[in-house]
Amino acid sequence: MSTTQSRSQLTLAAIVDTALSMAASDGLESLTIGEVAKRLGLSKSGVFSRVGSREQLQALVLEEYDRRFVQDVLVPALREPRGLPRLNALMHRWLERARRVEVPQGCIYCAGAFEYDDRVGPVRELLLDGVRRWRAALKRTVMQAVDEGHLAADTDAEQLAFEMDALFTGAMRDARFLGDARALQRAAHTWQRLIADRMSSSPARGRRA
Amino acid sequence: MSTTQSRSQLTLAAIVDTALSMAASDGLESLTIGEVAKRLGLSKSGVFSRVGSREQLQALVLEEYDRRFVQDVLVPALREPRGLPRLNALMHRWLERARRVEVPQGCIYCAGAFEYDDRVGPVRELLLDGVRRWRAALKRTVMQAVDEGHLAADTDAEQLAFEMDALFTGAMRDARFLGDARALQRAAHTWQRLIADRMSSSPARGRRA
Repeated sequence: MSTTQSRSQLTLAAIVDTALSMAASDGLESLTIGEVAKRLGLSKSGVFSRVGSREQLQALVLEEYDRRFVQDVLVPALREPRGLPRLNALMHRWLERARRVEVPQGCIYCAGAFEYDDRVGPVRELLLDGVRRWRAALKRTVMQAVDEGHLAADTDAEQLAFEMDALFTGAMRDARFLGDARALQRAAHTWQRLIADRMSSSPARGRRA
Repeated sequence: MSTTQSRSQLTLAAIVDTALSMAASDGLESLTIGEVAKRLGLSKSGVFSRVGSREQLQALVLEEYDRRFVQDVLVPALREPRGLPRLNALMHRWLERARRVEVPQGCIYCAGAFEYDDRVGPVRELLLDGVRRWRAALKRTVMQAVDEGHLAADTDAEQLAFEMDALFTGAMRDARFLGDARALQRAAHTWQRLIADRMSSSPARGRRA
């Protein structure tokens, strides 16, 4: 890699990182190339030449968010044994990352769902795609926990995935808007309750933790 | 009341009604006096003279939203017997109103929590005040259900109020953003699960439904 290429890539990384922070706190819709350039002390045309368009910058921001999210939440959870240990790890890593990242900065996906629910266009599609991939991962992990006999066979995986996401979204709202420091802990508590309920609802069934 | 006063009040009601629809679909922050005037075929100065300021219009919108919400959710629930019947009525009327109003139009409070979580100013304060009043009403109703012996004495009222609001917010997101027609039903299902869990957790305790 030449020094020029390397410097150019560092600049792009800095642009995306700055844009990600701005989108987290003010929303993807308020993101502008001009403002990103100003914060980094770059020319607007310099940023423009690197990212192509505002729309492309929004796409790069979501890609980078997803990359970090997978690294922080999904990858470590996949190291846990298949079934309930992995499902619990997903939920707890998700909440743990929120404490570190989304509570201080804002959550692009939580805010985006309400910002883009009446809009059409590529950003909405990217957000939708991200939410659907995450929900599919949650559902798959729930189904594995059923297969392993850790959760009752009649567990509705989509229902439990909905509950995980609702608890997360509710906790984010309480933590950021109401400033409730106990919000993430509340979500974890309800999670335990919902899981315990699924473990005990059919006591006759096979191997159980 | 003179005809002029009456007509003036009808105009103000039309302004607030239109502004409420606009705020529900595009957010309180995007509300402008000019756009409201345009939609109603009124002059901008005519709207301005009636509402005073954009900020005052935002306050009138929230006041009208709250008035309708109380009428649709709180008033009928208060006709139910104190305790679990009233608590269940609150949750079900809330979801039922959402099916009719917030799912088609958008929810000012859900979206507002994420729109205003990094802002300061009077609209944020009004939204916060509205959420806190509602959460206090939920908490109070949970505590009455404990007093009546319908829920276990160790029920954490704030925790359950958090769960109600998280389920509602998650269902709104799924219904509007993911277009999931089953979302409100999912919230009602989880609600039943969480309540059943609180009814059975201390089987030794007094009168129970």
